[in-house]
Amino acid sequence: MQVFQPQDPAFAERVRDSFSRQTALVTIGAKLASVRPGAIEIELPYRADLCQQHGFIHAGIVATIVDTACGYAAFSLMPPDAGVLSIEFKVNLLAPAAGAKLIARGRVKKAGRTITVCEGDVFTVRDGQERLIATMLATMMTILGRHDVIG
Amino acid sequence: MQVFQPQDPAFAERVRDSFSRQTALVTIGAKLASVRPGAIEIELPYRADLCQQHGFIHAGIVATIVDTACGYAAFSLMPPDAGVLSIEFKVNLLAPAAGAKLIARGRVKKAGRTITVCEGDVFTVRDGQERLIATMLATMMTILGRHDVIG
Amino acid sequence: MQVFQPQDPAFAERVRDSFSRQTALVTIGAKLASVRPGAIEIELPYRADLCQQHGFIHAGIVATIVDTACGYAAFSLMPPDAGVLSIEFKVNLLAPAAGAKLIARGRVKKAGRTITVCEGDVFTVRDGQERLIATMLATMMTILGRHDVIG
Amino acid sequence: MQVFQPQDPAFAERVRDSFSRQTALVTIGAKLASVRPGAIEIELPYRADLCQQHGFIHAGIVATIVDTACGYAAFSLMPPDAGVLSIEFKVNLLAPAAGAKLIARGRVKKAGRTITVCEGDVFTVRDGQERLIATMLATMMTILGRHDVIG
Repeated sequence: MQVFQPQDPAFAERVRDSFSRQTALVTIGAKLASVRPGAIEIELPYRADLCQQHGFIHAGIVATIVDTACGYAAFSLMPPDAGVLSIEFKVNLLAPAAGAKLIARGRVKKAGRTITVCEGDVFTVRDGQERLIATMLATMMTILGRHDVIG
Repeated sequence: MQVFQPQDPAFAERVRDSFSRQTALVTIGAKLASVRPGAIEIELPYRADLCQQHGFIHAGIVATIVDTACGYAAFSLMPPDAGVLSIEFKVNLLAPAAGAKLIARGRVKKAGRTITVCEGDVFTVRDGQERLIATMLATMMTILGRHDVIG
Repeated sequence: MQVFQPQDPAFAERVRDSFSRQTALVTIGAKLASVRPGAIEIELPYRADLCQQHGFIHAGIVATIVDTACGYAAFSLMPPDAGVLSIEFKVNLLAPAAGAKLIARGRVKKAGRTITVCEGDVFTVRDGQERLIATMLATMMTILGRHDVIG
Repeated sequence: MQVFQPQDPAFAERVRDSFSRQTALVTIGAKLASVRPGAIEIELPYRADLCQQHGFIHAGIVATIVDTACGYAAFSLMPPDAGVLSIEFKVNLLAPAAGAKLIARGRVKKAGRTITVCEGDVFTVRDGQERLIATMLATMMTILGRHDVIG
C-alpha cells in the first residue's frame, strides 16, 4: 500500500475532532477505529434499528460509514485549515450486511491539490472472520477559505 | 415523464408495507410521501442529529433516502412475490443539505426483468422553495425465489 | 428544462473549435449535431469497426460520445479562457447499441465555479424511432490558468 | 490478491477468441497482454488519432480498454456457454493519459452467479515507469441462454 506523508503533523487529532462533530455518526453508533495518513477505519456495531426491510444493515448506512472513512482518508492529507466535502461516490453492494459489526476502510488512491480520489471497502465480522460486503469509489474536494466548511 | 403500468395492482400497499419494515428509516425519521408506479417520494425533516461536521445533513443520510426512493420506484413495477436489492448506486452531492426538510424523488429510467435502472434527485425545501442538492443513478435487482428477500 | 446563460457569447464557436481538435472523435466518426448553452448533442453513425464481440457498438465508444457531450455541455457555460476536464463519469448500459446511428445528449444538471455535474442519455435511432440505450452521470472540472488545458 | 478457480479450463482461449471479435479494439489498436483467472491486462500504444482536445488519450478510450479488461476478468470465471455484458461502470480520471502506451488491468472483486463486480486501473508507461491515470469500478452480468450474446 502507498505511504503518504501528511502535510499537517496533527492530522490524527484533526480527524478525531472533526469526527466527533458528526452527529449522524453518533446517532448510528459508528466509531473511529484507526487513523493513519490516507487510511481510516470506522466500525459500526450491528443494530436492529439501522436495517432495511430484510433485516440487513441499510445500504445507505453502509454508504454513510464508508463515505466517512473515505472523506477522512482524504482529509488526513490536507492542510490544517482545509475542509473536506464529498463531491460524489459510487458504492457496490456485494453481499447482505449481516453480522455482529461492520468495518469500513477508506484509503486515498490519488491525492491532488483540489481533488482526492479514495476507495473504500466494508466488511462484516462474524466469529472473527471478515467478509467483504461493499466497495466504494469516491471523489473528495479540498475546501479552502470558507469559514463554514472547516474540518 | 414515462408512464409505467404496474404488474401488481396492489403495488402501493406492497411498497408501504415494505417501507414500514425499514427500521433505519424509522430511526432517521423518513416518511413515504408519494407512491406511484415507477416513482416514489420520501421526505426527511431536518434533524440536528443527522449531520456531518459542518451542520449539513450527512451525505450518507442523503444517499439513504434517495437510494430508498429509487429502490421502491423499481419495486413498484415488480411482480408480487419479488424482492428488491440495490446492486449499486452513485450519488453526486450538488449543494449542502440544509433547510427545514429534504425531499427525495426516485423514478425508474429503464425497467428490465432482472435489472432496473433508476435515477433520483434530492431537494431541500426552505420557505416553500425547492433547491436541488443531490442526484443519484442506481441499479436495482429483482430477486425471485429467495425467502429471505421478499418485499 | 433549465435555461442557462452562457458567460461567453462565443460559446458555440469555442465548443466547435475544441471539438474539431478531438482526434478520437474524428477517428470514430462522431459529429457535433447541436450546441446550446448547457446542452450538447453528438451523433455517431453505426460502424461495424466500433463493436464489441456481439456486434453492438462497444460500451466504451458509447461512453466516449456521451462523456464528450457532457463535457461540452459543461464547457459551454465556462469563461472564455477555461479548459474542461472529466473528473469522473458513471454510465449505465440499458440496451444493446444497435441501429443506424447513435445520438448522445449531454446537459448540465448543476453548474458551479469549479465543479459542474452533467447528465447524458444515448439513443439508437432505427426507422426514425429513438430508443434509450445508455445514461450517464458525470463530474466535470473547470481548469483555469493552465496553458496545456485550454478549450 | 484473491485467487480464483475458473469454471472453464479453456477460459483463456475463450477470452482470446472473444477479444479477437471486438472490432472496436482492433480499430484503436488495443492488445490482450495477459489472461489469468479473474485478471486481465490490455495494452494500448499511444496514438495521436485517439486524443481529446489537449492531446491526451480520450477519457472514453481509456474507459474502453479498462471496461474491456474488467469485462473479460469477469468472463474468465463464467461457465463455457455464458456471455458477458457491462451493466454499468464508473471511472475516475486521475491524471492526463500521456505516454508511450497505456496498460489497463481489470480484476474481479466479487464473482456472483448473475452479477460480478470488477475493479480496474489504467497506467501510462514512460521510460519504463508506470503511473496510475484512471481507476474503474464496474458491474458485469452473466448472460445465459441467449444465442445473440455468447462470449
